[in-house]
Amino acid sequence: MTTIPASHLDLLQSPVATFATIGPDGRPQLSEIWFLADGDSVAISLNTTRQKTKNLLERPACCLFILDLADPQRYLEIRGDAEVSADVDGVFVDRVGEKYGVNLRDYDQPGDERIVVRIAPSRINAVNMAG
Amino acid sequence: MTTIPASHLDLLQSPVATFATIGPDGRPQLSEIWFLADGDSVAISLNTTRQKTKNLLERPACCLFILDLADPQRYLEIRGDAEVSADVDGVFVDRVGEKYGVNLRDYDQPGDERIVVRIAPSRINAVNMAG
Repeated sequence: MTTIPASHLDLLQSPVATFATIGPDGRPQLSEIWFLADGDSVAISLNTTRQKTKNLLERPACCLFILDLADPQRYLEIRGDAEVSADVDGVFVDRVGEKYGVNLRDYDQPGDERIVVRIAPSRINAVNMAG
Repeated sequence: MTTIPASHLDLLQSPVATFATIGPDGRPQLSEIWFLADGDSVAISLNTTRQKTKNLLERPACCLFILDLADPQRYLEIRGDAEVSADVDGVFVDRVGEKYGVNLRDYDQPGDERIVVRIAPSRINAVNMAG
């Protein structure tokens, strides 16, 4: 399955998701991130100085995991490869900032760059352990 | 850092954690699991028929991520390698069951086996994005 079933579409409105990349030592690295729904998948804005960005440029394999914070037996897992593109004029980072009501560029240092990472899904799991 | 700082020890009382292994395709796979605090790390009980068990037997690299469900800007990430051992007489699975008030063996099929997976931490990150 590479589409998100209707039963779990609401999770795309969650404020946060857990994002996994593979580090230089070959181990998974996880962190909590902001994201935007993007058609049948999700997209995130990353500062190019971050370790997770370096990981993705080395190995595009990644996974985004959205937990239902009110019912943590329910979640959506999107496995796939990162499709990286330039964030020309910061259009995308400003879209993410609009969702969260902040200017994400305020967190960047002078000279930092932003990229857009869209996940091309290879497999999507929609889980409800209580169901 | 390979110890859990006092600021995040409370997260070991969380009911669930997100567990990452690496699948046969080299991509991270994430799922929500039950776990027990085990000294300076955590341990989980896995049925040997599960894909995550097969992943760990192939590659011990893993990561356990405990999100503060009430404040999802706060979390604990334990990266490391899985140390797998036999669950002799089901002693460990019964300890996990006691924490959750269920008999985990009720979910197993006849002939299924259980192993104990303890994470040997290579790096621990205690994050508070709001802090």
